[in-house]
Order: sequence, then C-alpha cells, then structure tokens
Amino acid sequence: MNPHQYGLILAGGRGTRFWPRSRKRSAKQVLDVAGERSLIQATVARLAPVIPPQRMWILTNEYLRRTIIRQLPEVPQNQVLAEPLQRNTAPAIGLAAHILRSLDPDAVMGVFPSDHVVGKPAAYRAVLKAALKAAAAGNLMVVGIQPRWPETGYGYIEFPRGTKPGAEALPVRRFHEKPELPNARRYLAAGNFYWNSGMFFWRADVLLDQLRRHLPKTASVLASLPRFGSRRFATALKQAFPLCENISIDYAVLEKAAHVSGVAARDFGWNDVGSWNAVYELLPRDACGNVTASSSICLDAHNNFVDARGKVVALLGVRDLIVVDTPDALLVAARDDAQRVGEVVKALEKLERHDLL
Amino acid sequence: MNPHQYGLILAGGRGTRFWPRSRKRSAKQVLDVAGERSLIQATVARLAPVIPPQRMWILTNEYLRRTIIRQLPEVPQNQVLAEPLQRNTAPAIGLAAHILRSLDPDAVMGVFPSDHVVGKPAAYRAVLKAALKAAAAGNLMVVGIQPRWPETGYGYIEFPRGTKPGAEALPVRRFHEKPELPNARRYLAAGNFYWNSGMFFWRADVLLDQLRRHLPKTASVLASLPRFGSRRFATALKQAFPLCENISIDYAVLEKAAHVSGVAARDFGWNDVGSWNAVYELLPRDACGNVTASSSICLDAHNNFVDARGKVVALLGVRDLIVVDTPDALLVAARDDAQRVGEVVKALEKLERHDLL
Repeated sequence: MNPHQYGLILAGGRGTRFWPRSRKRSAKQVLDVAGERSLIQATVARLAPVIPPQRMWILTNEYLRRTIIRQLPEVPQNQVLAEPLQRNTAPAIGLAAHILRSLDPDAVMGVFPSDHVVGKPAAYRAVLKAALKAAAAGNLMVVGIQPRWPETGYGYIEFPRGTKPGAEALPVRRFHEKPELPNARRYLAAGNFYWNSGMFFWRADVLLDQLRRHLPKTASVLASLPRFGSRRFATALKQAFPLCENISIDYAVLEKAAHVSGVAARDFGWNDVGSWNAVYELLPRDACGNVTASSSICLDAHNNFVDARGKVVALLGVRDLIVVDTPDALLVAARDDAQRVGEVVKALEKLERHDLL
Repeated sequence: MNPHQYGLILAGGRGTRFWPRSRKRSAKQVLDVAGERSLIQATVARLAPVIPPQRMWILTNEYLRRTIIRQLPEVPQNQVLAEPLQRNTAPAIGLAAHILRSLDPDAVMGVFPSDHVVGKPAAYRAVLKAALKAAAAGNLMVVGIQPRWPETGYGYIEFPRGTKPGAEALPVRRFHEKPELPNARRYLAAGNFYWNSGMFFWRADVLLDQLRRHLPKTASVLASLPRFGSRRFATALKQAFPLCENISIDYAVLEKAAHVSGVAARDFGWNDVGSWNAVYELLPRDACGNVTASSSICLDAHNNFVDARGKVVALLGVRDLIVVDTPDALLVAARDDAQRVGEVVKALEKLERHDLL
C-alpha cells in the first residue's frame, strides 16, 4: 500500500428519502438499510484493503459525528470532522485537501460517498488502485461505470468515442447531469457514456491548485486556517467555513478544469441506494416479490418492501408498497413514489415537527 | 320505565376483523374504533334511558370481563358474567333468561350485540320500546331495519308482502341468511325484506319454554343450576356450560318457533361495524377522502383509513388502504379486503403467535 494514499468519506448528507428511518441524527449513511452494517461501516470496510482506516478521514456534521465515531472505532477520532455548517462538496473536499497537504506534501486522496453499495468489492478495488495510481501521477481522476440500463437518476461521464470498458485513464470529454429518458437511452446506445460514480481521486496539492484557479475565495479562506491540530483550528474553522462558496466540486472544478481523466470501469455492482425502492431492488425477495422480515404475514400481497423492526407486519391484498415503521412515525408509500419521500420531510419541516426530522 | 325490563348484552366475541387492535383481551366491543367511547360503553349509554345500567347484564369471557367492568362502572359487577368457555348465543341467552326468571318471574329481556353503532338513538329507542312492549305481551320479537342498499353482509327478515316501515309487531315469514348479491337486490326491490339487526326481545319464561321445546338438553342443563348468587353457582356453571349445545339462538329457536314477530323499523343509523372499512364509512373524511389523525401527512393519497395512536403516519401516492398500527403489529390492507382481516389472525394462530392474538 502506498503510504501517501488517504481516503476522504463525505458523510454530511441527510438522506431525507429514507425517512422515517433517516433523521438528522441518524442519516442514511449510519443506517443499516441494506445489510447488517451501516452504509458508512460497509464503505470503510470495503476500502480498508487499499486505504487503511488509519488514513481515512470523514467529513460530517455535528448531528452525526458521535454516531460515526461510535460506528467506526478503527478510524482515529480526530479524523472525523464536523463541518461548522452545511456547505456543498467543494469546501469540504478543499478543507480535507488543505489538511492532508499540510500533513503530507505528497498526499493522494480518494473522495468517496459514504452511502453507496458495491456488490463486487474485488473488482471495485482494482478500479480504485488504477484511479489512485493515475491520481498520484498528477491527474484529476473520476470513475465512470459502464451503464446497464438507461438510468435517469445518475449523472453521466462522456469518454471518447469507441471507449472500451476497463480503460484506466481516459480523457473526459464532458460531464452530463441526470438526463431525461430519451437522452439516457441515447447515452446507453452510444457506448462511451458512463455512470458518474461520485468518486474522485487526486493529489491534495493538485486539487488545491485547481481551487486557487477556479474558486479563489474558498481557496484563500482555507489557506488562512491555522495548522490542523493546533488549539485555534476549531474556532478558526467555525469562522472561516461559512465564508466558503456553497458549491459542488463538480461545478467548481471538474467542469472547469482543462483536463479531467477517468477510469471507464466495468460495473462492480455499484448502487447509490437512492431510495427505499433501491433497497427493495438490492435485497432478496420472497416468492411473491416481497421484501419483509420473516415474521411478516403476506396474503395476496406482491412486490412490497417492509422495514419494521421488532414488529409483525401483515400485508393483505396490497402490492408495490413501501412500508417503513419507526416508534414515532410510519411511512406507507407507493414504490413508484419512492423518490418523493423527501417531500414528506419538507411537509414536516413546514409543520415544524422537529421531533420527526 | 317498566321495572321488569332487563337488558342482556352479548360481549363474548373476538372481532378478529379488527386485528391488530382487537386481541383476545381487547376485543372489538371494548375498543374505541368508532368514537371516543368503546362500542360497549356506547351501547349501554344508548340503552340507559330505556333500560337503566342497574338492570343491564353482560355476558362475556374471562379475557374481557375485567376490562368491561372497568369500562362500565355503572353496571353492577356481579351482572358481568364470563362464560366458562365459548358457546354460541343459545346457551348464553338461555343462561341469562334462567337467571332473570329466577330473580323476577315477570322479567322481559332485550338481547343486544355489544359492538354495533346507532346513528339515531332517539329513533332507536322508540323501536326498543315497541319491541319491549310486544315482548311483555308474550311475543318472541326481532327487529328488522329497512334496507338502504343490497347489503350482502347482513341476514334478512322477511315480513308479509306490503309491509310498511314503522309497523310494530308483524309476523315474521322467514329468516334469510346473508345473501348473494342478486338475492340481496331482489330483497331490496321486494320491500318486505328487512336487515336483521341481531336484537331480540322476549319474556324470560317464554324463551325458556322455547328452549325446553327446541333445545331440551341445554334447557335441562340450565335448569339444574343452583340459585344465582349462591356459593355453588360458579362451579356448577363451569361444569354445566360445556354440556350445552354450541348453537345460535337463530337456529335453535327463531327458525323453529311457530310464531316470531318483529318490528319493521325505519333505519335508525344502524351499523354493525363489521370491518375496518365500516369504520372508514362511519368516520369523517378529509378533502381527499382519507380518514386519519390530524397529524398525518397525505401526499397524493386518497380514500385511505389510518388508525395509528401517538404516531405520525405519512401516506404517499397510495389509495384505498387500511393502515392500523399498534406497538407490536401493523396491518396494511386493501380496503376491499377488509372482510378478510380475520385470515391474518388465522395465519397467526397457525404460527402460534399467541402474543399477537
């Protein structure tokens, strides 16, 4: 293992589409929605053979920091940082790059979402290694995944025509946001459009150079911070962080940089677990297509998803439902509306039901 | 008020169609499914102006006796009896007639289900009085209710052709069990078929005469009991009751008696609250046709029924569902399948989930 390789896991999101299980203090990434471990635990475990937990850094918020420290005892506590307030990915990644470069001038960092699932971890790690290697050589690296269907919920990376899956450092022609279905179909047919996995790899100093060029205000705010680990760091961060631009690294850097490269990866069982319906698709189903605890009773019930802990659920004559029960809130939704669960959270915010957020 | 009038409320049923709220120890009749009071509390309150609680008798089982005593402090405790085991209505009514006749040779009794709802109590009480009066004169009385639709879930009472609603003591031509829809439509069109309300009125001695004639074994078992209130009564009942036939009063007496009379009543807002769907029909709905607690969130949700205490329920993109939540069990059913909820209870019995029965 290259001792200059570091991981940054972005774990500041809320995952409102996983309400009522996801709350401010128990966001999607710390939930065990798709297995026995939480999504962030699975993320760290999957990365560990390439980037050991001792070199893993996690950016989250004050609501989740303690839970994450508890779930990940193998990650040093002082590497689990809470952002003073929610900003988009550019300031968070910039902050981590700033710290890592100060600790190791040759730091190469991989940036990972905390809440995705990978079905083929060995294939995944091969991609990781390729991306880290290209990043160490000075490239801004992204990872595209060969699409399996015309998904409208993902962004796409356009590689040169004729790109074959498996290529390890191709120039990126363009980034495309989540497409409408006709475009998604076109991308799939074209063959050189890959799902954007949301992972980034680069040397910390290379990223800081890019920030200075494309996001100079944030870059100078970060440059003004005292040494990480010094007594003044936390207070200074609290004052400085709100001055950073609220912008994603995609908009701030990747779409503006002269050269971005990418791995055109064969699918490694990647799933961004975007909704309860994605969890339904991931988990094993019974003969009637239901995903439920074994103690459930299903009578003429088909293709339903149930998450209810410590409770028997009886489904009678219903199909294509999502049923998620918690001690203080219950969701019953059509599976087709899984993407809209965040609207429930918005309605609760309007009603000032902070107890349920 | 006639001091010889007594009420008998039959409260031994389980109401499995109201699972998961109904359990052995909290059957339908002691639940507040259709208002602030339990169904049996509403029953006693509705009867009180005609038959005071001091002359009300209740037959239930050991699971429910304490709850009923607690819910009905105005009914003397020793008049709330638990059947030693579940028998059908004939032994229960016979037992009550036996006790009442021993206490008051001129006793006239009205027999009432414990779990129905009456929307127009004043009209109801007028019917009661007419039925009790005819019963005091020696008749076996039933109460038919003018049907409002071709209901297939009720039995029907056939009166003479040309019967007009409001008639107070007509001969009953025949009893008809729950019909198929074509017959129900025929009954409705004919005009002389009335819904069987499940209420009966007769002198205690007249009923005992009928039992001796049509159900001699049960009659002699009951005749062998020691005096009610004596020390030996409870033990003797425990031994004798299982010897009684397991048969309804309808089969045992009403269909065999030479003369049965009935009130052909105008509808008094009667509802037998046969399922969660009946509760849905009874309660006020919001603009989208949902019956929910006010704290629920409904997004593109229509015509759903929700009963979840102390919990926010969010409905998203669903329609015509029944959602009933309790601390250890949750039901999600199609409203069209409300009559089949008992099948869930049967499935739980098979699984020996006694904790949920």
